[in-house]
Amino acid sequence: MRNFRLTLAYDGSRYAGWQRQGNTPNSLEEKLSSALSRLLAQPIEIAGSGRTDAGVHARAQVASFRAETDMDCAELLRALRAVLPEDIGALGLEEAPPQFHARLSAVGKVYVYRIWNSELPCVFERKYVWQIPEALDVPAMERAARLLCGEHDFSSFRSGRSKKSAVRTVHSIRIARQGEELRLTFRGNGFLYHMVRILTGTLVEVGRGNLRAEEMPRILEARNRAASGPAAPAKGLTLWEVEY
Amino acid sequence: MRNFRLTLAYDGSRYAGWQRQGNTPNSLEEKLSSALSRLLAQPIEIAGSGRTDAGVHARAQVASFRAETDMDCAELLRALRAVLPEDIGALGLEEAPPQFHARLSAVGKVYVYRIWNSELPCVFERKYVWQIPEALDVPAMERAARLLCGEHDFSSFRSGRSKKSAVRTVHSIRIARQGEELRLTFRGNGFLYHMVRILTGTLVEVGRGNLRAEEMPRILEARNRAASGPAAPAKGLTLWEVEY
Repeated sequence: MRNFRLTLAYDGSRYAGWQRQGNTPNSLEEKLSSALSRLLAQPIEIAGSGRTDAGVHARAQVASFRAETDMDCAELLRALRAVLPEDIGALGLEEAPPQFHARLSAVGKVYVYRIWNSELPCVFERKYVWQIPEALDVPAMERAARLLCGEHDFSSFRSGRSKKSAVRTVHSIRIARQGEELRLTFRGNGFLYHMVRILTGTLVEVGRGNLRAEEMPRILEARNRAASGPAAPAKGLTLWEVEY
Repeated sequence: MRNFRLTLAYDGSRYAGWQRQGNTPNSLEEKLSSALSRLLAQPIEIAGSGRTDAGVHARAQVASFRAETDMDCAELLRALRAVLPEDIGALGLEEAPPQFHARLSAVGKVYVYRIWNSELPCVFERKYVWQIPEALDVPAMERAARLLCGEHDFSSFRSGRSKKSAVRTVHSIRIARQGEELRLTFRGNGFLYHMVRILTGTLVEVGRGNLRAEEMPRILEARNRAASGPAAPAKGLTLWEVEY
């Protein structure tokens, strides 16, 4: 069995998220597994570096799969590009060491959240941004972001119930303005379910003056989802990069 | 009657072009005229700076219309933004001098044609680019572009039959690479039906080695559509700016 590493971009607008779920056929995992299974004439199970929610995009998601085949990577990549829909792009395919696994081998992730911070309509990028017309206090958001960085129990920033550890390390949260756009870049060793969207929604509450930056330690300590802000919409979020 | 100047961005993917045509209700002219007529409770005829073809986009199309109203521009702009679909953006609205007319007053136009010149899939910008995976000879395209600039009879670069003059002045054609993208910027005093798309298609034929740059004068002199290259696809073209 050979082991492969696949790098993918996708526009998540049409999809029910990465993960295959019972009767919802429109997951990215399902689309990719079935495309590869057909091409390679064997059942292929693809593993993503992590699950992206319904509507979340990826600039460079990484996935791995094992297959028995003589095809070389360039040939398989061309064949895969020919069968994938135009909102899923196979950027690269290479053979990986036997122990490589897209999720288990990942040591870090970078997510970008794009806010279109203007009253002006955003026509061309409309599917990839969250529009917030009112002014945001960016220095306050930056102060709050600094207080959220580091190793913490992020239970207040996770959706759903889980007994698994909520301790994660956020290495940095960078907030940069580019024209009408405010771009939040999150780097960390891993992120919980909805964590980037809740971090973003909470930072926006700070930007709007509904929360103070200095409340971040209290919110972290609460370890309670009710203490933080609402989750920002899925469509503004992009999985930017996976680190190994 | 007051006279208004409206600046618009639109994603042309879903539309049958700017111009209202018989039974095709899905023109931009129709969408905008009917939105304004409803908002202002009077029949509004909107004039665009020019017609964009089906599938062509606009970053800053300019339109004008006359109306009897007391609404101020900011109020009308907000109301218009609230009713337009998200693929049509009203960027600005201002009162114009009585003699201003979006088409008749225009003195120049800028169009941008975007080529995604790579084998890599272009997921996020896929609706706004023409993908050409093979290498193009850009210096040859630039030589050809220089030979097409100036005042010429562009009959060889016009679709359809017309007795109207085909003499236009192309001020410049700039070809710039930005990563995987090759961006062609056309500035001129006006462009004929399909002219930018045929100029682009002809330059791409030069880039592919199917035509020589030195053939451009002969193609212009032929004054015959059959002498030039095929029209590039509509989706790569954007009306960038209108000059007054």
